[in-house]
Amino acid sequence: MPDPSQGMINLQWAFALIDGLAGAGISRAVISPGSRSTPLVLACDAHPAIRISVQVDERCAAFFALGLARASGRPVILIATSGSAPAHWFPAVIEASHSNIPLILLSADRPPELHGWGANQTTDQQQLFGSHLRAFHDPGPARAEDAAREQLHRLGRQAAQQALQPHPGPLQINLPLREPLVGDPLQLPAPRPVEPIQPSCPAADPTLLDRALSLINSGPGIIICGATDLGLQFAEAVTRLAAQLHCPILADPLSNLRFGAPDCSTLICHYDAFLAGQAESLQPAWILRFGALPVSKPLLQFMELCTAPVILCDPYGQWPVPAPHTELTLIADPVRLSDAMVARAPTAAPADWLQRFRQLEQRVARLMAPETLDDQPFEGCLVRELLESLPEGSLLFSGNSMPIRQLDSWSGSSTKRIHLHANRGVSGIDGNISTFIGMTDGDYPATVALLGDLTFYHDMNGLLAAQGRDLVIILLNNQGGGIFGYLPQSGLATYETYWNTATGLEFRHTAALYRLGYQRVAQQSAFRPALSRALAEGGAQLIEVVLDRAFSIEQHRHYRQLVNQSLTDDILS
Amino acid sequence: MPDPSQGMINLQWAFALIDGLAGAGISRAVISPGSRSTPLVLACDAHPAIRISVQVDERCAAFFALGLARASGRPVILIATSGSAPAHWFPAVIEASHSNIPLILLSADRPPELHGWGANQTTDQQQLFGSHLRAFHDPGPARAEDAAREQLHRLGRQAAQQALQPHPGPLQINLPLREPLVGDPLQLPAPRPVEPIQPSCPAADPTLLDRALSLINSGPGIIICGATDLGLQFAEAVTRLAAQLHCPILADPLSNLRFGAPDCSTLICHYDAFLAGQAESLQPAWILRFGALPVSKPLLQFMELCTAPVILCDPYGQWPVPAPHTELTLIADPVRLSDAMVARAPTAAPADWLQRFRQLEQRVARLMAPETLDDQPFEGCLVRELLESLPEGSLLFSGNSMPIRQLDSWSGSSTKRIHLHANRGVSGIDGNISTFIGMTDGDYPATVALLGDLTFYHDMNGLLAAQGRDLVIILLNNQGGGIFGYLPQSGLATYETYWNTATGLEFRHTAALYRLGYQRVAQQSAFRPALSRALAEGGAQLIEVVLDRAFSIEQHRHYRQLVNQSLTDDILS
Repeated sequence: MPDPSQGMINLQWAFALIDGLAGAGISRAVISPGSRSTPLVLACDAHPAIRISVQVDERCAAFFALGLARASGRPVILIATSGSAPAHWFPAVIEASHSNIPLILLSADRPPELHGWGANQTTDQQQLFGSHLRAFHDPGPARAEDAAREQLHRLGRQAAQQALQPHPGPLQINLPLREPLVGDPLQLPAPRPVEPIQPSCPAADPTLLDRALSLINSGPGIIICGATDLGLQFAEAVTRLAAQLHCPILADPLSNLRFGAPDCSTLICHYDAFLAGQAESLQPAWILRFGALPVSKPLLQFMELCTAPVILCDPYGQWPVPAPHTELTLIADPVRLSDAMVARAPTAAPADWLQRFRQLEQRVARLMAPETLDDQPFEGCLVRELLESLPEGSLLFSGNSMPIRQLDSWSGSSTKRIHLHANRGVSGIDGNISTFIGMTDGDYPATVALLGDLTFYHDMNGLLAAQGRDLVIILLNNQGGGIFGYLPQSGLATYETYWNTATGLEFRHTAALYRLGYQRVAQQSAFRPALSRALAEGGAQLIEVVLDRAFSIEQHRHYRQLVNQSLTDDILS
Repeated sequence: MPDPSQGMINLQWAFALIDGLAGAGISRAVISPGSRSTPLVLACDAHPAIRISVQVDERCAAFFALGLARASGRPVILIATSGSAPAHWFPAVIEASHSNIPLILLSADRPPELHGWGANQTTDQQQLFGSHLRAFHDPGPARAEDAAREQLHRLGRQAAQQALQPHPGPLQINLPLREPLVGDPLQLPAPRPVEPIQPSCPAADPTLLDRALSLINSGPGIIICGATDLGLQFAEAVTRLAAQLHCPILADPLSNLRFGAPDCSTLICHYDAFLAGQAESLQPAWILRFGALPVSKPLLQFMELCTAPVILCDPYGQWPVPAPHTELTLIADPVRLSDAMVARAPTAAPADWLQRFRQLEQRVARLMAPETLDDQPFEGCLVRELLESLPEGSLLFSGNSMPIRQLDSWSGSSTKRIHLHANRGVSGIDGNISTFIGMTDGDYPATVALLGDLTFYHDMNGLLAAQGRDLVIILLNNQGGGIFGYLPQSGLATYETYWNTATGLEFRHTAALYRLGYQRVAQQSAFRPALSRALAEGGAQLIEVVLDRAFSIEQHRHYRQLVNQSLTDDILS
């Protein structure tokens, strides 16, 4: 017969852990329903510093937590019951691991004596996520001794630390719990004071910094700010560095340097359109890389073809293998690194170096003024109008596949600050709605997502969390995986069946199911009014834009040709 | 620059593997869209023995494949692209591992040279599913040499073997592929002849069989057939054994012994209602267990309190740890074991032993004639009418949580064969719709699922596969996780928020989204006509039954009390 005091022992045990986590500055928990996890949920509920969100689908829960952590920069707790429940976290765990997003995964488990002989909802939960975890702990079943509880409290703080430093990411604490599972929260101790962990990033090793500077002083180079938002301070620091070096910054849309940049004189945004075939004519002496790899394929190909040595700033020592041409990896805070380089007064490039990039940028910017035909919705126009319509400081979440590429091609730059985010860790079409909705808890005047139809379908369950929030989802419905239309698979007879895989769903029913405001946009001219209406009305809003895949590809080719023609004319003239 | 012949090398490589798998008798593949997986998809498409199903959501794909494999007993291939895509398989992998269902997981991967430095959609895919796999292989990137391809062909056959024997379950083959990814299927060789693998299960070790029989001959015992359908042959064999031993078979609904049993004289189905508190009065000398643990909590508690030695038939040597009281584990085919026991002519129990169980069974069966009040839908009546309405040989898929417990309580027994299935490996509320739809590809005159509302919500994406199929989903909507209403958590102030977690969704919109026929049943008397209509109309049908949780619990307690009172009267008289 179960010991009735066990319920209280479990609750005190869980509370010690939660208080350790809360004491380190964690304030959010996302739970999914279950019985075995009861002590953990009660402990979170009893803790004044923890705010709980509930999500029935654990996969959505994990991506929602990822969104919360992405917006706040602080670790978020996830709680699920035993069995297959924690396994649903896996896709978000992989994304968090590659995007450096701290998550604390608390998997409730059955105690050891129920393992290995077929007891219900019992499976091996040890290190469920393999190499994708920063750390794994299993403190064993709850113990009544003060010393054991004290140790678990310390483990909470330690775990929060490990989720943030040296490399932010997900970790799992597996918690076997014996029945009974309910205890009395009124008997819990008072929480201890909160002393948030302040993660810090190292300065560059001086010897390596010397080597980097001698490369940089060897000739004119390029700074590439990839698909990571490194913050406003970084934007300022890297802009100062580029100004000093007189070199271009090729800024991925997700670097957020394009939106609200402190100084646009070194900023290059249209490389995706003009860089193909320019590896020889624009050959730099070095490349300095910040953030994740950029989205643009022409830029990636340019980097591959360039023989210039690459200097990589990898703040967390994230990458065990040097990327191609990477001569030097600096494990250093990007702001401190940029400042340290400026302080060494590196040699500026000759005036015409930056000038060549700026001329290309300006010419292409003029050519890439998006226009549509017969009022057909077209991504170029949609992106421009969206960015123009958003209030300063808005959150814009982009789906992978085409939306982020369309933003790359068409965003241009502006002085208005927009916080553009996407799950580029492994660039999945999964969990995008939930990540977005998690991010809407941040402090933004407007929150908008731009998602393709397969991405939208994949995470529809995430819409349950949209209720009671102000947000707009722009669903770019081109009836399937439009990105494959740009790949060789599009020539196959089975292309529609196996690659495009249109769902054929009428998403207005999804809007009805989740009580979203719904507008369908079939003309380009209807888009801006629809967006204004959605933003003005508030609540959760869905705008479905009907796109024609063939037309999109045609337009893409049209503008590519326009740019190529202009560049060729230039060479011939 | 990529080598264009690489596309053909990839395709030949993939075809060698698929032909190896097909040659072993595999005929189904479930794919999700992606680019990296192209050679695998083309190879499946080119293979005449392989039939492909497409599912956009990899989580649904995996549970759908699990359903196909559950219905056919044959391994099913799963294909996904690189990145987080294969991670969505994890919940189904855990279920398959515990339910002994063979799955061949083919994860397309980026080649080694793209790993470890942030290349897009690249993550560590080695042994993604840890201890939940039967085997893991990574043959490396495609090679052009005949010998290498021949070796991969052999690996295909070997993998099919490993997914079936000695312990059926999931395995992963990770397949790094270099660009370009498209090759010409017309240049592929002819498939080799199919020689299906015929898995076999061992006979019991003779010494252990002797020990089992000496236990069985020591006094009257009980046979428990748990939550696993071991087939018609087993039903006959174990019934012969029980007849010879003159002992009761306590048959879980998922054993399928209750429906179409060859001889009902030893069959006991109402133990869930009468067994509580009977561990002393019905103490057996031994328990012989087949299949997974039963669903019934009173039966599990009875087994825990009984001091009788348990003999467990574990055909695959699945359990590393002996379950409580398990004196002897026989790794043996259940049919051969039953037959071998009968052949040894074991001692029959005294006549009154079986008689006591039969009297209880009959008395409780009379008391458990379900009736409702004011025409309110009630699970007891729903289960009875459902089982009466289904044609002989139908598939009935049950959700976990309450549906399977209601079936346990109310199914009774009948001579009509029904194939009742559920995901009882880890008993999750996940992937139930997809598993069910996968199973509908089997040969059944009607296919019906009985699912709670949280279970239904969790896997709504799975409904995309319902189009074009004949199936009926009965959604028991009691607004949340009704099972928690039976647990101590139901007394907590936060019960509704953290445990019941009602979604508040109006599922008629789900029906509209997925183009399901829809009927809403709010009176018990409307249920049978609605079911008849749905079965007669064909296509994919949803019947939403509106249940009142409080009423269900009340009725549950009413019938428990009725039975308890009757048993107490019996003791007093």
